[in-house]
Amino acid sequence: MRDFSNDREWLAINTATIKSCSLEQAIAGCARAGITAIAPWRDIVQQCGIERAQKLIRASGLTVTCLCRGGLFTAADEAGRRAAIEDNRRAVDEAAAIGAQCLVLIAGGLPPGSKDLAGAHAQVRDGLAALLPHARAAGVPLAIEPLHPMTAADRACVNTLAHANDLCDALGEGVGVAIDAYHVWWDPDLPRQVARSGTRILSYHVCDWLVPTRDLVFDRGMPGDGIIDLRGMRGLVEDAGYRGHCDVEIFSAQNWWKRDPDEVVRICIERHQTVV
Amino acid sequence: MRDFSNDREWLAINTATIKSCSLEQAIAGCARAGITAIAPWRDIVQQCGIERAQKLIRASGLTVTCLCRGGLFTAADEAGRRAAIEDNRRAVDEAAAIGAQCLVLIAGGLPPGSKDLAGAHAQVRDGLAALLPHARAAGVPLAIEPLHPMTAADRACVNTLAHANDLCDALGEGVGVAIDAYHVWWDPDLPRQVARSGTRILSYHVCDWLVPTRDLVFDRGMPGDGIIDLRGMRGLVEDAGYRGHCDVEIFSAQNWWKRDPDEVVRICIERHQTVV
Repeated sequence: MRDFSNDREWLAINTATIKSCSLEQAIAGCARAGITAIAPWRDIVQQCGIERAQKLIRASGLTVTCLCRGGLFTAADEAGRRAAIEDNRRAVDEAAAIGAQCLVLIAGGLPPGSKDLAGAHAQVRDGLAALLPHARAAGVPLAIEPLHPMTAADRACVNTLAHANDLCDALGEGVGVAIDAYHVWWDPDLPRQVARSGTRILSYHVCDWLVPTRDLVFDRGMPGDGIIDLRGMRGLVEDAGYRGHCDVEIFSAQNWWKRDPDEVVRICIERHQTVV
Repeated sequence: MRDFSNDREWLAINTATIKSCSLEQAIAGCARAGITAIAPWRDIVQQCGIERAQKLIRASGLTVTCLCRGGLFTAADEAGRRAAIEDNRRAVDEAAAIGAQCLVLIAGGLPPGSKDLAGAHAQVRDGLAALLPHARAAGVPLAIEPLHPMTAADRACVNTLAHANDLCDALGEGVGVAIDAYHVWWDPDLPRQVARSGTRILSYHVCDWLVPTRDLVFDRGMPGDGIIDLRGMRGLVEDAGYRGHCDVEIFSAQNWWKRDPDEVVRICIERHQTVV
């Protein structure tokens, strides 16, 4: 296992962790803290403007581990699915513009009014297949992120690393996975599936599962405050060959989002050294 | 698929659905509604007293589909694990006394302070193995119920039907599964695993997944109010050979638990006929 104790080389701050910040503020905060990599969300990149974002990021010298996020391929009708693919093509272009190492994609949930889970799975596969030529041409790898099964109905119906790996097998070159400890820690099949992902692991995210968890979306914990064996999971990911950054991504409406972003980044660095 | 439209033969009311009722009130409510089967929880059976519960149930003529619930095998130390096994032996005796067709078991979560998921899995397997001779002697089949992955940390670390089936394979005669639509509907591997369960399906529970879901435990929906394809899932279970009852089990602190139990039972009957 690589030694993280003496440097900040492999820590990336996901901008969702410091949600109150604009892209410019996030970049400045990373610089103040000595952070060398960032994982921005599309909304703040768009608010900044793509060209300006590109310039700011280049000037900062920050590595962009990934752009979060595209996907959401499921829709009630063909027009909706076409619109989703168009939007994902723009996301690919944005990722290319800011030099992101990959574009993270979540599946999308059941279309409104639908109970057809297998049909939603097919829509996701078809959407990815339709997007892939543009992504390959742009040189932007697509990272499928399985989300926790509690999000299957309304956010993402790809909920296991096995399912994401199956999609990679079906789609071939240019597709990989994003592994977020929060979404997959519970899976008894995880060690086998992480090994199966191997060099297809494009992005690795961490936060922690709190006990109790009070909200299905916005109650994630700072690494070390919950029950996930993050060091063990990092071992799995590194044993599979992953040598990229570790993105700290925390959705926390009632706690971390209310704090001073500089304080949040400082604690991310501490926890990265001690528990991740 | 069996025709449920003209009778109440295959509907069982789980007493968690009418949580305000004592066992006596639940039995009386089922009788008023023409229900022929009940799935009681241990707490109200114990409050009634085992011998009195036995007499009331015999006199009612109700089928007891299962006793809910034992398990919770994980603990921080050996004494805690031994105490859990002792309590489960009492649960087996209670199930035998009231003529329950099986005892439903949930795994238990991570022990306090632990992040060792594989260790918790081993504790569950060992606990089941220790309980099994007593259950076999009493003629009470053990039904392992995988719970939704969102419960893995603090309630049950067996979260997929695949894992429950693996435990059945390891433990042999006297162990089967309880399938609750709410806990497993999201699983892309479900059709294959239900078929694999086959005649080991000892109990089938339904409620619905609401969008949005506002609480990880107590916000389950009445069948038909959410997004689960319950008729499709019943097809899977029946195709696997299951011919038992369908238990309606709804944890709903903010809605159904606040309503008149007779109204709740009436709506369960309607939905059983139309969507289950």
